[in-house]
Amino acid sequence: MAEIGARTWVVSGGRVPFPSHGPEPGFTGFDQLCVLNATDREAELALDFYYEDADPAGPYRLLVGGRRIRHIRVNDLIDPEAVLLDRPYGCVLRSPVPVVVQFLRQDTRLPGTVALTGTMAYPA
Amino acid sequence: MAEIGARTWVVSGGRVPFPSHGPEPGFTGFDQLCVLNATDREAELALDFYYEDADPAGPYRLLVGGRRIRHIRVNDLIDPEAVLLDRPYGCVLRSPVPVVVQFLRQDTRLPGTVALTGTMAYPA
Amino acid sequence: MAEIGARTWVVSGGRVPFPSHGPEPGFTGFDQLCVLNATDREAELALDFYYEDADPAGPYRLLVGGRRIRHIRVNDLIDPEAVLLDRPYGCVLRSPVPVVVQFLRQDTRLPGTVALTGTMAYPA
Amino acid sequence: MAEIGARTWVVSGGRVPFPSHGPEPGFTGFDQLCVLNATDREAELALDFYYEDADPAGPYRLLVGGRRIRHIRVNDLIDPEAVLLDRPYGCVLRSPVPVVVQFLRQDTRLPGTVALTGTMAYPA
Repeated sequence: MAEIGARTWVVSGGRVPFPSHGPEPGFTGFDQLCVLNATDREAELALDFYYEDADPAGPYRLLVGGRRIRHIRVNDLIDPEAVLLDRPYGCVLRSPVPVVVQFLRQDTRLPGTVALTGTMAYPA
Repeated sequence: MAEIGARTWVVSGGRVPFPSHGPEPGFTGFDQLCVLNATDREAELALDFYYEDADPAGPYRLLVGGRRIRHIRVNDLIDPEAVLLDRPYGCVLRSPVPVVVQFLRQDTRLPGTVALTGTMAYPA
Repeated sequence: MAEIGARTWVVSGGRVPFPSHGPEPGFTGFDQLCVLNATDREAELALDFYYEDADPAGPYRLLVGGRRIRHIRVNDLIDPEAVLLDRPYGCVLRSPVPVVVQFLRQDTRLPGTVALTGTMAYPA
Repeated sequence: MAEIGARTWVVSGGRVPFPSHGPEPGFTGFDQLCVLNATDREAELALDFYYEDADPAGPYRLLVGGRRIRHIRVNDLIDPEAVLLDRPYGCVLRSPVPVVVQFLRQDTRLPGTVALTGTMAYPA
């Protein structure tokens, strides 16, 4: 299998929706970074988060196995510090091997509704 | 007609919504891979699906005629094995001729609502 | 002003939603091709539509002035033939000068709801 | 930190939704340009807006600090002239240093609903 993707990916429009409505966990609001690693090697990702009014935070380190995907909920990131809900952010994701990254948001702030938006991230 | 597109395309944020609500088939939830083949030659696509916790499955083989499109509902893929609903996945699509691929999700998990999201896939 | 964009753009996941609900024209369902022409020259676009089960139709010819945008509702295209509602399609847009193309769908098939999805088109 | 991104970005499908429903400011409709500046240098952005029936307006000048993001609501731009609500537009964003730009729309024109759509902008 040839290597597929890029080693650096960026999203700039992050903001985890808050609050959420509807049954958990299916309808909990989230921002998600969806990573595909088509190589044979496990990848240790390094994520840095950028903010409007503070220095970047990170790196957040996450493993994605070889020939595996991982859908990372930004809400779940707490080390080195929690990514605050409802706070605008951008994210630079780096990988030692080529990967592919898609961004997805689920917004259930309004009771009885679900809104989705997403895009391939930008391969830098 | 010049050839248009790429031979390898990737999405990493797949997950067919489940359950569905509303009249079928129009409101059945789906993930879709929308393929345009502007060449004169029929293309036999090969799709491989990647998971969080299992080896990749595939190839799934699908034909797209020359100068035709095909909107592939991931829900409908059953050979070599069904793509399970509500299971996170990524997909690598390969074509012997250049094609263009767009990803689309319709989510009707919540009664009385429709959510859409989509993006051009990543041309590897 | 330097020239910006590409001369060929593609979307493969087209399907104008039908029927529509809500006040017209704001809530009429549509697929839209949004074109920006940053050059000084008027551009005569040529659009070809691809289908699952028929030969391509086109070219549809549309003008976009220099230093202008044009948001083209696919629903409105009738020459050389109407693009049928609720029919899957792909579209190849060609321009004599570089332009930028974004795809947008508004879906109001379900009463009391609005769903949106979109993406930059693929620059071939 | 290596430089990440491009110096020119484009969206062509702009239109700030109007009117809005739901609690402000969280549910006010908007179009947003989300900029990430991973360099060490403050960037003075220059935005030009293109219309269907008028000459371009701009430049709108906005600062984004080094190692910062900025989520720009198009609704808020008033100098050199307001970007009118519900008016189709395209935007060319230029930066003296590489940045990354994502487009996001929130549409609450219909009471009791939220629709989102977005995409990475086009790096020219």
